[in-house]
Amino acid sequence: MDKNRRKFLRSIAVGGGVLATGMPSLAAYNGASDEQVERSQQRETKGARFNMSGYAAPKIETVRIGIVGLGQRGSDAVERLSYIDGVEIVALCDKYPDRVAAAQKTLEKMNRPKAKEYSGEEGWKALCDSHDLDLVYTPTPWHLHTPIAVRAMKNGKHAATEVPSAKTLDQCWELVETSEATRKHCMMLENCCYDFFEQLTLNMTRNGMFGELVHAEGAYIHDLTRDWLFNKNAYADMWRLKENASRNGNLYPTHGLGPIAQCMNINRGDRMDHLVSMSTNDFTMNNIANEMAAKDPFFQEFTNKPFRGNMNTTLIRTYRGKSLMIQHDVSSPRPYSRIHVLSGTKGSVGKWPSPERVAFGHSWIKKEELDDLYKKYSTPIVNHIGAIAKDVGGHGGMDFIMDWRLIDCLRNGLPLDQDVYDAALWSSISPLSEKSVSSRSKTMDIPDFTRGNWKTNQPVSLSLEGGATTKVRSIKPDHQL
Amino acid sequence: MDKNRRKFLRSIAVGGGVLATGMPSLAAYNGASDEQVERSQQRETKGARFNMSGYAAPKIETVRIGIVGLGQRGSDAVERLSYIDGVEIVALCDKYPDRVAAAQKTLEKMNRPKAKEYSGEEGWKALCDSHDLDLVYTPTPWHLHTPIAVRAMKNGKHAATEVPSAKTLDQCWELVETSEATRKHCMMLENCCYDFFEQLTLNMTRNGMFGELVHAEGAYIHDLTRDWLFNKNAYADMWRLKENASRNGNLYPTHGLGPIAQCMNINRGDRMDHLVSMSTNDFTMNNIANEMAAKDPFFQEFTNKPFRGNMNTTLIRTYRGKSLMIQHDVSSPRPYSRIHVLSGTKGSVGKWPSPERVAFGHSWIKKEELDDLYKKYSTPIVNHIGAIAKDVGGHGGMDFIMDWRLIDCLRNGLPLDQDVYDAALWSSISPLSEKSVSSRSKTMDIPDFTRGNWKTNQPVSLSLEGGATTKVRSIKPDHQL
Repeated sequence: MDKNRRKFLRSIAVGGGVLATGMPSLAAYNGASDEQVERSQQRETKGARFNMSGYAAPKIETVRIGIVGLGQRGSDAVERLSYIDGVEIVALCDKYPDRVAAAQKTLEKMNRPKAKEYSGEEGWKALCDSHDLDLVYTPTPWHLHTPIAVRAMKNGKHAATEVPSAKTLDQCWELVETSEATRKHCMMLENCCYDFFEQLTLNMTRNGMFGELVHAEGAYIHDLTRDWLFNKNAYADMWRLKENASRNGNLYPTHGLGPIAQCMNINRGDRMDHLVSMSTNDFTMNNIANEMAAKDPFFQEFTNKPFRGNMNTTLIRTYRGKSLMIQHDVSSPRPYSRIHVLSGTKGSVGKWPSPERVAFGHSWIKKEELDDLYKKYSTPIVNHIGAIAKDVGGHGGMDFIMDWRLIDCLRNGLPLDQDVYDAALWSSISPLSEKSVSSRSKTMDIPDFTRGNWKTNQPVSLSLEGGATTKVRSIKPDHQL
Repeated sequence: MDKNRRKFLRSIAVGGGVLATGMPSLAAYNGASDEQVERSQQRETKGARFNMSGYAAPKIETVRIGIVGLGQRGSDAVERLSYIDGVEIVALCDKYPDRVAAAQKTLEKMNRPKAKEYSGEEGWKALCDSHDLDLVYTPTPWHLHTPIAVRAMKNGKHAATEVPSAKTLDQCWELVETSEATRKHCMMLENCCYDFFEQLTLNMTRNGMFGELVHAEGAYIHDLTRDWLFNKNAYADMWRLKENASRNGNLYPTHGLGPIAQCMNINRGDRMDHLVSMSTNDFTMNNIANEMAAKDPFFQEFTNKPFRGNMNTTLIRTYRGKSLMIQHDVSSPRPYSRIHVLSGTKGSVGKWPSPERVAFGHSWIKKEELDDLYKKYSTPIVNHIGAIAKDVGGHGGMDFIMDWRLIDCLRNGLPLDQDVYDAALWSSISPLSEKSVSSRSKTMDIPDFTRGNWKTNQPVSLSLEGGATTKVRSIKPDHQL
């Protein structure tokens, strides 16, 4: 390798600054470039420094949390976490001070003490560097997830980051290497893993009710155009529209992928081997941009941009010969769907289009039979916290189940359900799909972020053993822990 | 090109014998080999000799039909076609004489004259060579579809062949070139194009109700293992099990693909550009073979065979930037599905899982609204013959709609809804998917069988103009034409 090339690699690997944070720009390419793929292979061959899968960190009686990112998702998190005992929200951060002030009001409403405030472009750095925190919780724009999680871990904090946890292969590896080096958790907050039907079908899978899983499907099909992407009041600085106006692939794979990856014991007995990915052209977003720009010059900057193809379909094959199909479409006027299909040697399920369906042969079972399955096979966590979670809310309850489980694991020194390898792997589908899409659906190897540990890593625990000590402040009198 | 290679190419191109018929053998590879791909590209560059899309053959007042293949599918065809006036079933053929005798009984029951009989391994050749036929209708095992259709056309008959019309790229081109050279129709009997919801959504698409179609999905998910593939009484000589025990890919793409290809005007304004295809391993068929063999030595020959992966998913991209996803699974215990998803800039539909669904935004419309759409947008052919077809039966009526339409077009000299380019293209997905699957889902170019004519070919006609003169013998008194 010549000197310039080595220098170039080092400058990227070291990161920092605009390049590493990957701030959305209309010109950036975030796909897995040949250089990133090469670096990824080098990092993979180095082997794991430490195995964070199944890692039990020291117990933390009271989890002191700093929340970075107080848009809608972050504001909701402030309220949800406030219901959990054994939690102190000690720091709040957003680029915009008015959002921090609004979150303080939420704490006040929830009878929680005031938190320390951070704001401005660099506020998150000061928060990560502070010494009175156990966990940095990050519902920011995507490009900040990895920089914040890495800085948090390097400063001795656990990291919980919204999806996707990383935008590039380099970032995926940075998360993995930092978590292993610091022995700090890096959990991606994939809430859909905690939804009720997903939990049910995970437990049924574990009980062998579908035989061996052969194929699974997930998706994020959710029309975000009018209410979200092109809404000036939705995402600060239009960051999410910029992502969709500059990249092409599956930008947001984890909602559909997380639950089925858990069912298939990915990283824990099997691993993803390779993928191919195909995108359509864009047939809607450029038209909407033109239409908006005709009424409001603000949108002029979004006309004639390389908007991502409306539908992306990605096929993933595992080492053990199973397949996963993942779809992504946020710009077609379709009913919402995450699909959630499991197909095994003894049965199959599908969640979308509703109603939820289970079959042990050629016919879907009746609703009453499904109700019985819910009674028999809902997971311990759903039985323990599900009803309260529905009261708290947050996507029907799954957000709160996730938050409570994270806190309860940290407080009891239990391994997390989603480790840094899941975060990296599930997120890596984005840059890999972008590269495949840009190369006529070329086959892309998927890195083994566990570096061989998938062979012995244990499946996600469905037990609450050793935990479930974390109380929730009352919502309704009959729903108290 | 050296002499041996030229000789080799010629020997394949000329065809005939076992090689060209591709009789299922447990060792054969039918995928698009590098040689076949090269030959395909050469044939494509030669240009079309004549454009059979939209071709109106001379009118045939009474269509004299020879039916080859009298298993269950063929026997049903004998009965269905007997309901149609302007049809004479003048020849019946099967390898096994007892099947011919049974079909004669059906003709007798239907008050139809006796047909000429052909049987034995070579019976189909004599039938194709005979001079008293207008149409050879072929519900045989797959490997005979192309040889019979080609021999029929070369002998001045139109050809109607069951799905898939060809197993190899060479066969696809043989169909196209023969149809163009002889100006005889070669229609693949893709009945699912005539199912009620598929017809409705084709007409709604044509009326712009979904805006521009961006993505579509189709499938053949149908568990055939116990009742069909491993049933000694189902397919003569276990031919279909042999197909599934020796090939890997989407062996049977057309039921899901045909209807969505018509909606997307494939070969008629757009064309398929390339595909990628992924199969799982087999997790069921080898187990069933072992289980059957333990009880019955007959099945010994099917143990330890390279059974096709249970689920195959194939992604197709079109020249105009749309995508199609096609699935194939006949060996998992799942509810039946052909999916039939259409996703456009103004709306979307899905047929499976039932009930049939239509959306013009984020919610599925109500059943009463769907009923209204059926009233308003059912195609002329469905309005004309749908009720009678339901009485006749055959997959809920679609088989009879298809048969009637074929005969009515031939009698009135109208172009067929499915031409030889559709037959070749839809069937070519099998060998292309086999090659992609065998090469880690490598991207495969899809031949343009129209050789440029897709740019000007007209969409499938939904009108009955110039036709609808063909009567049907009464089934019920109030359902007569």
